[in-house]
Amino acid sequence: MKISLETLSKDLLAGNRRALARAISVVEDGGSDASDLVKSLFSYTGRAHLVGITGSPGVGKSTLVDALITEIRKSGLKVGVLAVDPSSPFTGGAILGDRIRMQGHTLDKSVFIRSMANHNQAGGLGLATYDAVRMLEAAEFDVILIETVGVGQSELAIAQTADTTILVLMPGSGDDIQAIKSGIMEIGDIFVVNKGDLPGANKSASEITSSLELSSFANDWRPPVIVAVSETGQGIDSLWSSLQEHFKFLKESGVLLNRRKAKVQAELAELVAARARENLKNSMESSDSVQQLLEQILDKKVDPHTAAEGLIQDLFRARD
Amino acid sequence: MKISLETLSKDLLAGNRRALARAISVVEDGGSDASDLVKSLFSYTGRAHLVGITGSPGVGKSTLVDALITEIRKSGLKVGVLAVDPSSPFTGGAILGDRIRMQGHTLDKSVFIRSMANHNQAGGLGLATYDAVRMLEAAEFDVILIETVGVGQSELAIAQTADTTILVLMPGSGDDIQAIKSGIMEIGDIFVVNKGDLPGANKSASEITSSLELSSFANDWRPPVIVAVSETGQGIDSLWSSLQEHFKFLKESGVLLNRRKAKVQAELAELVAARARENLKNSMESSDSVQQLLEQILDKKVDPHTAAEGLIQDLFRARD
Repeated sequence: MKISLETLSKDLLAGNRRALARAISVVEDGGSDASDLVKSLFSYTGRAHLVGITGSPGVGKSTLVDALITEIRKSGLKVGVLAVDPSSPFTGGAILGDRIRMQGHTLDKSVFIRSMANHNQAGGLGLATYDAVRMLEAAEFDVILIETVGVGQSELAIAQTADTTILVLMPGSGDDIQAIKSGIMEIGDIFVVNKGDLPGANKSASEITSSLELSSFANDWRPPVIVAVSETGQGIDSLWSSLQEHFKFLKESGVLLNRRKAKVQAELAELVAARARENLKNSMESSDSVQQLLEQILDKKVDPHTAAEGLIQDLFRARD
Repeated sequence: MKISLETLSKDLLAGNRRALARAISVVEDGGSDASDLVKSLFSYTGRAHLVGITGSPGVGKSTLVDALITEIRKSGLKVGVLAVDPSSPFTGGAILGDRIRMQGHTLDKSVFIRSMANHNQAGGLGLATYDAVRMLEAAEFDVILIETVGVGQSELAIAQTADTTILVLMPGSGDDIQAIKSGIMEIGDIFVVNKGDLPGANKSASEITSSLELSSFANDWRPPVIVAVSETGQGIDSLWSSLQEHFKFLKESGVLLNRRKAKVQAELAELVAARARENLKNSMESSDSVQQLLEQILDKKVDPHTAAEGLIQDLFRARD
């Protein structure tokens, strides 16, 4: 028997972990159930510190997350983790989360780890991440780590649903240089050179530091560069201090409010665009004039760009 | 001095390679120049055979493409290659194309290889791929290979801009089993077990074949499973025969027209959605009522889903 969304909300607010898992599945699936659940729980959100963790595959993000959970738990705070993989139906998103889950937080009721993979349309996982974070917030998790598998466009978008973004690099990978070149540095609030026991770790760290010194910043925060060895826990205490310091900075400077406003604006635009696309797909199937337009394109009488311009005008005029 | 789009079109149609390279850059950048260029060249498109090549990283897609170019060139046809990487700003899309370019087709004027990486928004690369293919078609390339780096959602979408999709697997990777499980098999018109000299190649091939025998197909094409060794060229002649056979099948059965219609429909929906999103982002910045809505969301008085529903209604009523 299907339990009602109302019961689900109540159970989640009461701290029931199964309800939380269930609620995240509901928002992952999207649709009106997802919207209804978000509506009923929205007033309980907004207090957690959202931390995005991103970097190339192989730099040790999962191990870093594991060590960070242990560190944060020392302070008694509740930690939620979303391991998000927008990319591959082959590798799946489950791998990350499972690996962490096995490493000893299973019995800790103040830790909740969840993997999310992309089984929906483009844009869908980003929107689902916003809502999954909300479920964790409503369940009173204090720090929510959003880990992405790689540093692709969709992963960067997901990492940027966070308040604080940690960019993880490793020595000798050339990622540091690439990061500097590609302008990806801008997204990092905190830099971690992981696997800091490998040769070249300090060199990497100082290169990043110098490149940051040359950068201009939109606000008064100077991103720290932390050398860490996640396996042994070295540097993880500094990372946690930096995270707390950054959250404090965000709140006191008013940057938090601005960032969250920008995020809400981006989410709204995506929500509306996703719905517009859906409306459009439905109306295309049933519209004779759209079907005629398609024929004309196939006959090379009209090109798709001209056709799209016409459709836009119709679309924005049509409903009254 | 900037040359005009008109000159660019003419030069491209006259077979000028630099103009072709330039035109692809224009459509990659998007905007009104891209639209204008597509409009002026659209009537020259639609004749080429578009072949998508996808599969996990490491299965040897680039080497396969290289061998396939050599094979196709024996028949005198012109081959265009788009190596598309929607995922990573770190690895970049250039790697693939560069690797192929070095392998001996550089001096062959009937081969054109181009890498495209995702430096724009989500969805943007898919749309740019449609248009880049059009530039190659207008320049009279007969076969256009569209290679993607991985098998993520965006890569699958890109591979499916093709008429024929080749799914590349390798023995012992577990990808064959994963592919069967994940339902990804459905997208393959031709299967290649690459690195066919590795142990287990024939076993992989027969597992795929059995799983295909259990599948139902939307049309009368039974996907062949080809064991190939791209390094030595083994199996590449069968692959090329299968490609030609599939193209013939598509044309004679009428499936080609249906697929192209579906593709145009998908492209139109994406074009309109992309433009709707852009309009929305612009109007949000300047709209007092949207700014008030954002404040209400931040104050937890309205949730984003309810807000989006309201905006949708306004949007579809607003312009007259």
